[in-house]
Amino acid sequence: MAQFTFFTNPMSRGQIVRWALHEAGADYDAMLIDWQDKPAVFLECNPMGKVPTIIHHAPFGDRVVTEAAAICAYLAEVLPQAGLLPDDAERADYLRWLFFAAGPLEQAILAKHLGFDPQEPRQQMMAGFGSYERTLAALEGHLEHNTYVCGNRFTMADVYVGSQVDWGLTFGTLPDRPAFAAYAERCRSRDAYKAGKAIDNALIERMQAS
Amino acid sequence: MAQFTFFTNPMSRGQIVRWALHEAGADYDAMLIDWQDKPAVFLECNPMGKVPTIIHHAPFGDRVVTEAAAICAYLAEVLPQAGLLPDDAERADYLRWLFFAAGPLEQAILAKHLGFDPQEPRQQMMAGFGSYERTLAALEGHLEHNTYVCGNRFTMADVYVGSQVDWGLTFGTLPDRPAFAAYAERCRSRDAYKAGKAIDNALIERMQAS
Repeated sequence: MAQFTFFTNPMSRGQIVRWALHEAGADYDAMLIDWQDKPAVFLECNPMGKVPTIIHHAPFGDRVVTEAAAICAYLAEVLPQAGLLPDDAERADYLRWLFFAAGPLEQAILAKHLGFDPQEPRQQMMAGFGSYERTLAALEGHLEHNTYVCGNRFTMADVYVGSQVDWGLTFGTLPDRPAFAAYAERCRSRDAYKAGKAIDNALIERMQAS
Repeated sequence: MAQFTFFTNPMSRGQIVRWALHEAGADYDAMLIDWQDKPAVFLECNPMGKVPTIIHHAPFGDRVVTEAAAICAYLAEVLPQAGLLPDDAERADYLRWLFFAAGPLEQAILAKHLGFDPQEPRQQMMAGFGSYERTLAALEGHLEHNTYVCGNRFTMADVYVGSQVDWGLTFGTLPDRPAFAAYAERCRSRDAYKAGKAIDNALIERMQAS
């Protein structure tokens, strides 16, 4: 049995985790989940029925991880030889932007999609992300001055933040600004990104042909 | 100078981080931020102008961390002697529920507050959290069978998840279910929780009196 079981659907946030698995050099078996017919083994692991979900078949027993950002962070920690963890001086940026992308950025994009963009200070505090524009400007400012999340070196935080930027530009949920476009290009040039995409794109083609 | 500078407002998510600072035994100076008049030193650290924000005055230079969940995770890592990090067997739950609370749970509560609760599968996938009820049920199921996020032992993940549950019950954004109430009580009984609350409550009283 492979070290990880990876529940995914190629048309989902599972693409983030496939890229992470390839960056980390993880040994994994993928199980494709059909939204209409979710297997019991999967629902036992994640009662929310959400992909991506992984099982780590560890020496101390099976461990389930859900949430794309959590899975990225987990893989970096259990496969440290891949060199995707931050060092002491990089740790602040690593955690800050990983949680920023999983929290405020996701929220701002969703809220905007729903037609809600808080203007009143009270609403902005409740919403946590402040406003869509301020959220984008914070990330843009960081990427204008840094090649990657942690400065000059690619880390696992870039798999998650980079996926959000890549996805946002592709689907128009993020504006096409130079700092976002340049960062997305750097991420797309990674071998592991390309390997993951090739697999997911082939699966999508097969699904659409059947 | 203390090891950490902590920008906060007692009536904010800064309460989460004050609890975390006390759990970690961190040496910190608090700087209270008035929403009407934010000092330049703070806006330089966090252009979004959001509290909580911390500066870690580290041997390798100052490092800024924003996002309450990221700050919790950071403090656990840089002050490992506090014993708030997960061990190998606890790591999956630690990361899973930390990101669950910072992502889907925050989103579900916000969306419900805004009157949006996705029912269609397409909407549920876009929203990431699925539905409010399914999100709550996932956390409830975990807390029914576990004393803390990682099982029997309190870790830093409980500061963040516990704050969300405590806050949600207090302000009615989470339903009053037995598993939530019992977990919140366990969290509220922590010495560090009480120490942090005492400081923030005294500050709130002083603000309201002035």
